[in-house]
Amino acid sequence: MQSQTKRIKVFAPATVANLSCGFDVLGCCLDTVGDEMIISLSSEPGVRITKIEGADLPIETDKNVAGVAVKALLEIYEKEIGVNIEIYKNIKAGSGIGSSAASSAGAVWAVNHLLDNPFSPHKLVEFAMEGEKLASGNAHADNVAPALLGGFTLVRSYDPLDVIKLHTPKDLVMTVIHPQIEVKTSDARSVIKQKVTLKQAIHQWGNLGGLVSGLFTEDYDLIGRSLEDVIIEPMRSILIPEFNNVKNAAIQNGALGCGISGSGPSIFALSKGMDTAKKVADAIREVYATTGLDFDIHISKINSAGIKILE
Amino acid sequence: MQSQTKRIKVFAPATVANLSCGFDVLGCCLDTVGDEMIISLSSEPGVRITKIEGADLPIETDKNVAGVAVKALLEIYEKEIGVNIEIYKNIKAGSGIGSSAASSAGAVWAVNHLLDNPFSPHKLVEFAMEGEKLASGNAHADNVAPALLGGFTLVRSYDPLDVIKLHTPKDLVMTVIHPQIEVKTSDARSVIKQKVTLKQAIHQWGNLGGLVSGLFTEDYDLIGRSLEDVIIEPMRSILIPEFNNVKNAAIQNGALGCGISGSGPSIFALSKGMDTAKKVADAIREVYATTGLDFDIHISKINSAGIKILE
Repeated sequence: MQSQTKRIKVFAPATVANLSCGFDVLGCCLDTVGDEMIISLSSEPGVRITKIEGADLPIETDKNVAGVAVKALLEIYEKEIGVNIEIYKNIKAGSGIGSSAASSAGAVWAVNHLLDNPFSPHKLVEFAMEGEKLASGNAHADNVAPALLGGFTLVRSYDPLDVIKLHTPKDLVMTVIHPQIEVKTSDARSVIKQKVTLKQAIHQWGNLGGLVSGLFTEDYDLIGRSLEDVIIEPMRSILIPEFNNVKNAAIQNGALGCGISGSGPSIFALSKGMDTAKKVADAIREVYATTGLDFDIHISKINSAGIKILE
Repeated sequence: MQSQTKRIKVFAPATVANLSCGFDVLGCCLDTVGDEMIISLSSEPGVRITKIEGADLPIETDKNVAGVAVKALLEIYEKEIGVNIEIYKNIKAGSGIGSSAASSAGAVWAVNHLLDNPFSPHKLVEFAMEGEKLASGNAHADNVAPALLGGFTLVRSYDPLDVIKLHTPKDLVMTVIHPQIEVKTSDARSVIKQKVTLKQAIHQWGNLGGLVSGLFTEDYDLIGRSLEDVIIEPMRSILIPEFNNVKNAAIQNGALGCGISGSGPSIFALSKGMDTAKKVADAIREVYATTGLDFDIHISKINSAGIKILE
């Protein structure tokens, strides 16, 4: 029986960071979009990536986000153990829906589970952030936090790290379009001005307060009114073809709000109910069909659990 | 019997705006600090300020915030009526705890009540804002909203006006010190820089999200961690003698947080429980006793009702 507990297959979810008004602080976890990972403990010490399918990612532990995240965990764990990691990617790298976060979060969650949970989910966020640091140079938490805690999360502070799980209204459904273009991280960064007007900032934090309030009170209209980004979206959306047309189509077809997922190029639309989310998907598919660009569309409920055990 | 319904005495509460991280959007309503007002309907059309006690304020309707606010209400109300207003001020003008807001809000609330509530509390906010416009040149809602709706309020947006009532954790108690110095509005404004770094703004809206979340989940520790203002307080606190010493004394004596009330000079400290709030009051009294300045100290629970009928 013991050998069974030493191997686990998990679902590592995609995540949508920022959510319009919550740049660098908010994120939420998807339910039906994500990777699969098989993690097993081994008597041979060390962390090994033993298989990667679905993506061309580094197999060397120190160059792989899952490897680095698990190594960060094991540095704190008192006993010397071995870990083998198999990664089956469905989330495309560079899509803006937390591909690297899914791998980092899934790996540390699975290892923690196999070790009988010595670390809290909040502590796992710190380990997974090491994977994000490798992926983007910045140990951010806005994707790994929702992947590990599920639902909607707020990164209140990094120093010290303070991650808060918010409430998940049950009828929210996310539609995501991933235009298969490459937006260089350096471009996504360089378009962002480092100074904002106080007036813009007040506008943004008014919306953030409205969104958090709307989540707790399940006030879908308020959620919709609050899904507005007056700072980042006007700068970054220029890198995403047809952004304004997609957004208009989503809103006209009943979406509560629509914005850039993470640093893009994916665009998310949040709706009340599956029917509306599907209608929104049809509308934005129609917009993108005219471009000649390849794209994926995902429709998913919000996953309030986070990582899930498959086997 | 009808004559009884045509006169009402109300308690018009003081309010604390901004609450550290919520500059220009958050406010809360006090329970035992406020003015009294007697409002009566009259068969003689027009709005008259018939008595003012406790403050040297203009008796002319168009120069008095209560008069202007009630006139704004009557402009929308279909019938021509008369209103007489008596104002008994306890909240000192220029204290930074919503003195003008109490008068504007109290007057429109009372008139609306005497007219059998033709307007919603949210609509009353708009009328009361006309009083604020007269008082400060700026039709802001961060004091009149909590005075009218009670508890903690968020002004998500001004265009269109969108005011949200948040949840009030029952154990919160406010300690307020009002140093009786005059801070000119022009000075309080001119110290505020109109550009902030994106990093500061993100820090601030992370805290705002944490505070709103903490209010809904009654997480007092989170409320405390979130009561931080990295933008306005460092600029404005230089106008308030002993601000840093008061803040340190409040925190050391158990306050969850401490900051500038509105545009000052009052300083608020928020605590869990009356005992802590009293201890905090003693500690800040000791700090201010060394200055030679006159000051008032108020201790009050949060008033989740707003305006109250006294007679």
